[in-house]
Amino acid sequence: MKQPNRAIQFKSSNEVELLEKDYQEPNMDVAQLAHVEIFSPKPEESVDFFRRILGMDVVHQEGQSVYMRAYEDTYHNTLKITESFEAGLGHAAWRARSPHALLRRVEALEKTGLGLGWIEGDIGHGAAYQFQTPDGHKMEILWDVDYYMPPEEQHTVLLNRAQKRPDRGVPVRRLDHINLMNSDTKKNTDFLMDALGMRLTEKIVTDEGDVLGTWLSVSNIVHELAFMNDPSNAKGRLHHVCYWYGIPQNLFDVADLCKENNIHVELGPRKHSISQAFCLYVYEPGGNRIELFGDAGYLIFDPSWNPVIWSDLQTVSDRGVGAGFTESYWNYGTPDVKARVHMD
Amino acid sequence: MKQPNRAIQFKSSNEVELLEKDYQEPNMDVAQLAHVEIFSPKPEESVDFFRRILGMDVVHQEGQSVYMRAYEDTYHNTLKITESFEAGLGHAAWRARSPHALLRRVEALEKTGLGLGWIEGDIGHGAAYQFQTPDGHKMEILWDVDYYMPPEEQHTVLLNRAQKRPDRGVPVRRLDHINLMNSDTKKNTDFLMDALGMRLTEKIVTDEGDVLGTWLSVSNIVHELAFMNDPSNAKGRLHHVCYWYGIPQNLFDVADLCKENNIHVELGPRKHSISQAFCLYVYEPGGNRIELFGDAGYLIFDPSWNPVIWSDLQTVSDRGVGAGFTESYWNYGTPDVKARVHMD
Amino acid sequence: MKQPNRAIQFKSSNEVELLEKDYQEPNMDVAQLAHVEIFSPKPEESVDFFRRILGMDVVHQEGQSVYMRAYEDTYHNTLKITESFEAGLGHAAWRARSPHALLRRVEALEKTGLGLGWIEGDIGHGAAYQFQTPDGHKMEILWDVDYYMPPEEQHTVLLNRAQKRPDRGVPVRRLDHINLMNSDTKKNTDFLMDALGMRLTEKIVTDEGDVLGTWLSVSNIVHELAFMNDPSNAKGRLHHVCYWYGIPQNLFDVADLCKENNIHVELGPRKHSISQAFCLYVYEPGGNRIELFGDAGYLIFDPSWNPVIWSDLQTVSDRGVGAGFTESYWNYGTPDVKARVHMD
Amino acid sequence: MKQPNRAIQFKSSNEVELLEKDYQEPNMDVAQLAHVEIFSPKPEESVDFFRRILGMDVVHQEGQSVYMRAYEDTYHNTLKITESFEAGLGHAAWRARSPHALLRRVEALEKTGLGLGWIEGDIGHGAAYQFQTPDGHKMEILWDVDYYMPPEEQHTVLLNRAQKRPDRGVPVRRLDHINLMNSDTKKNTDFLMDALGMRLTEKIVTDEGDVLGTWLSVSNIVHELAFMNDPSNAKGRLHHVCYWYGIPQNLFDVADLCKENNIHVELGPRKHSISQAFCLYVYEPGGNRIELFGDAGYLIFDPSWNPVIWSDLQTVSDRGVGAGFTESYWNYGTPDVKARVHMD
Repeated sequence: MKQPNRAIQFKSSNEVELLEKDYQEPNMDVAQLAHVEIFSPKPEESVDFFRRILGMDVVHQEGQSVYMRAYEDTYHNTLKITESFEAGLGHAAWRARSPHALLRRVEALEKTGLGLGWIEGDIGHGAAYQFQTPDGHKMEILWDVDYYMPPEEQHTVLLNRAQKRPDRGVPVRRLDHINLMNSDTKKNTDFLMDALGMRLTEKIVTDEGDVLGTWLSVSNIVHELAFMNDPSNAKGRLHHVCYWYGIPQNLFDVADLCKENNIHVELGPRKHSISQAFCLYVYEPGGNRIELFGDAGYLIFDPSWNPVIWSDLQTVSDRGVGAGFTESYWNYGTPDVKARVHMD
Repeated sequence: MKQPNRAIQFKSSNEVELLEKDYQEPNMDVAQLAHVEIFSPKPEESVDFFRRILGMDVVHQEGQSVYMRAYEDTYHNTLKITESFEAGLGHAAWRARSPHALLRRVEALEKTGLGLGWIEGDIGHGAAYQFQTPDGHKMEILWDVDYYMPPEEQHTVLLNRAQKRPDRGVPVRRLDHINLMNSDTKKNTDFLMDALGMRLTEKIVTDEGDVLGTWLSVSNIVHELAFMNDPSNAKGRLHHVCYWYGIPQNLFDVADLCKENNIHVELGPRKHSISQAFCLYVYEPGGNRIELFGDAGYLIFDPSWNPVIWSDLQTVSDRGVGAGFTESYWNYGTPDVKARVHMD
Repeated sequence: MKQPNRAIQFKSSNEVELLEKDYQEPNMDVAQLAHVEIFSPKPEESVDFFRRILGMDVVHQEGQSVYMRAYEDTYHNTLKITESFEAGLGHAAWRARSPHALLRRVEALEKTGLGLGWIEGDIGHGAAYQFQTPDGHKMEILWDVDYYMPPEEQHTVLLNRAQKRPDRGVPVRRLDHINLMNSDTKKNTDFLMDALGMRLTEKIVTDEGDVLGTWLSVSNIVHELAFMNDPSNAKGRLHHVCYWYGIPQNLFDVADLCKENNIHVELGPRKHSISQAFCLYVYEPGGNRIELFGDAGYLIFDPSWNPVIWSDLQTVSDRGVGAGFTESYWNYGTPDVKARVHMD
Repeated sequence: MKQPNRAIQFKSSNEVELLEKDYQEPNMDVAQLAHVEIFSPKPEESVDFFRRILGMDVVHQEGQSVYMRAYEDTYHNTLKITESFEAGLGHAAWRARSPHALLRRVEALEKTGLGLGWIEGDIGHGAAYQFQTPDGHKMEILWDVDYYMPPEEQHTVLLNRAQKRPDRGVPVRRLDHINLMNSDTKKNTDFLMDALGMRLTEKIVTDEGDVLGTWLSVSNIVHELAFMNDPSNAKGRLHHVCYWYGIPQNLFDVADLCKENNIHVELGPRKHSISQAFCLYVYEPGGNRIELFGDAGYLIFDPSWNPVIWSDLQTVSDRGVGAGFTESYWNYGTPDVKARVHMD
């Protein structure tokens, strides 16, 4: 890391001079990942997995969709499981930092030509503006949300917790992030940085300049969203959705439970090099990869953070601790392209 | 939690109406707690504790001060230990989000009448504007910082880590927060919320309306600063400085090491109710209370977070897990008032 | 620890001389604590606690008794909960190392005058010889046991595990030990050492020679049974029954769950000085204190182990890590004497 | 597991009949693994690894050997590192349960024709009888040991701990077990079961009856010694020596430290299926594989334990949690055969 030149020149105890007059202030308009919708061809089994193994609650059912939440999710729901003929991403939703911030972002999105327009809302939130990434991942941004109002039997003694800790499975605490496969990591990354103000925290770039993966954040965690190169010809695939424990040991507990219940454990527990997060990857019965985070990795408070640059996948794998990456990790996403081709 | 009214009214896919036109956008000008200075009447023993037990490095010595850092602190140093006749807080420093943000905050501070003026800088940072809280705790706010440049033997394989993990003690990873005792928690809290834009995340307020403690944040962690009522007549006392592990087990490891090395363990490991943080309190040899955080507690991403309100200390104590609070926890701070009176 | 004199004298590569000819070989006749029966005035709530919070299974019900097991208990059951007008110990059962070892112990027990005679067996085991301690705690010793035969849906992938890990609560793995209050710790300890061959591993003895507590083992763990002085006039009271996790973090998980479900958490998580075990104490709804062990503490392999001697309760408390002992810890046992007196 | 037939028939409260009159009582003559000697071609680097990374202490140096101990090892030393031209096992030492037990085992060993005779002793112990396995691994059995007498500055506050917890590295607590590669697992296993009374706890046997690995115990832990098939033509190779933490998280801490210090991490942290132990494998600078145990896995108290039988290596690998086995795990041992051939 290079030492920054001084942006401010001391003159006296009463006076300084601003040298870097055109320093670009960071865009703080997007506050967080609010919820995710996934598609599942086996919705009952999927819901059973999130309920019985990950301890999440079903809070609403409507049409072909089931709405679920982790016990420390602040809002009404963070996961919408919609029945579909194949697994994949439904959409991901971002919450703006204020109503005005939302309108500013919508204005920026409209200029990109990738805006899809407003919707009235859904279970758990009000008006949302929908758009897509260059690769076609569907997203939305919103302000108005509903907080979760637990029934009597879910009242908790911990006032900073939205509801009582469940007595099922190894219960996850809250939604953490999503990881998307894509055909052009640089292009999709630039889109979200420009339109939403996301900040790049880490990336993998080869010596030839190919961007293999990016980690993007709107907060102090290393990422709410990552992009990975998709080696297939598919576009818009989901790599994984991640829920958070905050407690490393819970990953071993839930991995044990998954093994006992015929849930495919793909990778981990492992301590990542990128993000330093302690993680586990499993496939929910519908086929989507679910990541579980066992700790907070490292947090970034530095407002002038220089993105960390890794040069190849092998180094990224080797410098972590525990299980190395599998072939499937780099190739499998949902929808499962081979499966789809096969069906055609 | 009450459901918010809608701020935005859906009209059509092309149009919404902003209902809450005067929603106050949060002030994001302050990004983080940058460093802390403590006073110690036993500087050598203090430095030995932070070095040998907490695994921190000495990066500079000058005059009566020693500058130290944890291995994942981003900047040059986060702890300045200055020799003094009694323990206590030297000052706490905040980093602004941009040079412009710094100047905006200085303007606001000047209006409060509690500004002290600019200094040229110190080891590890450039120009800083100094001020004090209504109770007289000395603080500063700055933008220009120096990143840590590790010597060859401290180069790390983890590119997102500032230096190699030390092989001494149970090494802490980074500075987390400070807790200050004060004579009027409401007044000091309002000052930092108004002047710096800090956000209230949790508080203890009696049924009679007395504010016993507040937790204030400029980021996604529950607090960078807390205020607690000081039952003594002293002003400006330090309750504790906290460093972060992110790994719960490390608290038991370091508590074991402290017990073996005659370091007073006051409280914990304990899982707090407020902040849900896993914590340990010890006294460094100079007398200052040092907290160690074992995990990230819970993180707040909700930009419209309603502060959590606790009504009394007993509930706060009971709803945590593990060791309950001791008498000393509520009464002891540095300088140690009784000791000082005794010396007079 | 004093260096032992040599027991064997080297003469040549072909010859040694045995100096300590009358070294008393340890009695290995008792292999383990096999099961425990507790009384509960609220059997339904007790069973719900062990099932839903500790993840144990009900394997049999008969008359006023319910038989339960942890998922790594080897035999059919380890806990018998019998409805009674007050809480307390039903009995504790020891498994001998062989059929012959059982008969040798019975012969020794008969000589003490505290034998009660053979019973035909119970659910999960065959013929058992019953006896009582000088204080009247009922015990039995047996050889013939039934292994657990899990139904199809409980089949596990881990061949060294008796059944699938449950998806309820924070599931305990196996029975660990019992702790009994008594009126004369030295007398009751000597009885079990003489009659069963238990080995003393740690004890608390005041400078005046009063034995306040003893830890007794028949294996490599520090204790299967402990005796503590009962400050009341009662005899034969139960201090606690302990189940084992082997994983420290699980204690925080289950403490959280207990707090959320109105289960009284008396003490911990705490790292004991004696046994170095990581522990938690809660009261099951019937009133009996249940301990949960989070790790293996330390194990004793040394066959000439010198018992560790502590001189007072304060040192024992202070040299642990985490929550200190409460008043109730030293005084409360089941049956609850005050409650009983009150009812008379 | 099949239900045992009853060995004892109930007649009346005063009388039972022994049905299984010829039940073979277990041989309890060997109590524990006492110490291990390894060869290192880089003794200084090896000692630095055990001292600085694993926190062990050097307690004696003599000739080409350095004697070391972990801080909860009971006796004077548990590791002897002897300079040699290549890495490998020096010898492993067993402590008998009593002087008489030692003489009984020596008598049995002499009958096998694999006895080597008595030695006068070594630093930390008295007379020992040396022997070898059919494959030529050198071993010894002894009774007389020296306890560790820590100097003043190593005095600990924990009376059941032999010395103060070190402030270096991530300190291991005690020696746990050894794993030996061999040319005929069945033969070497039978030898130790017959001559020393070791008990088989788990094994891998193919459908064709080939014994691929065995786990042998003299205590309640799953093994003090394991044998694995050696795919090379070498005899008497060491697979690994294992030290114990008892705390799962410590494995991630020490793996991080190893990665930062250029120590090769071969495998893990991983939760084994066999033994259920949480483990990590690294190569010390001399080339020997060192395992670190993070918890106690499961303990066996059942005196009629039926050995657990696994049918293939893939199942053994798959049913663990975390990193899968590497090629090197099954092939590499010390001395490193390829390296040796190369040197010739």
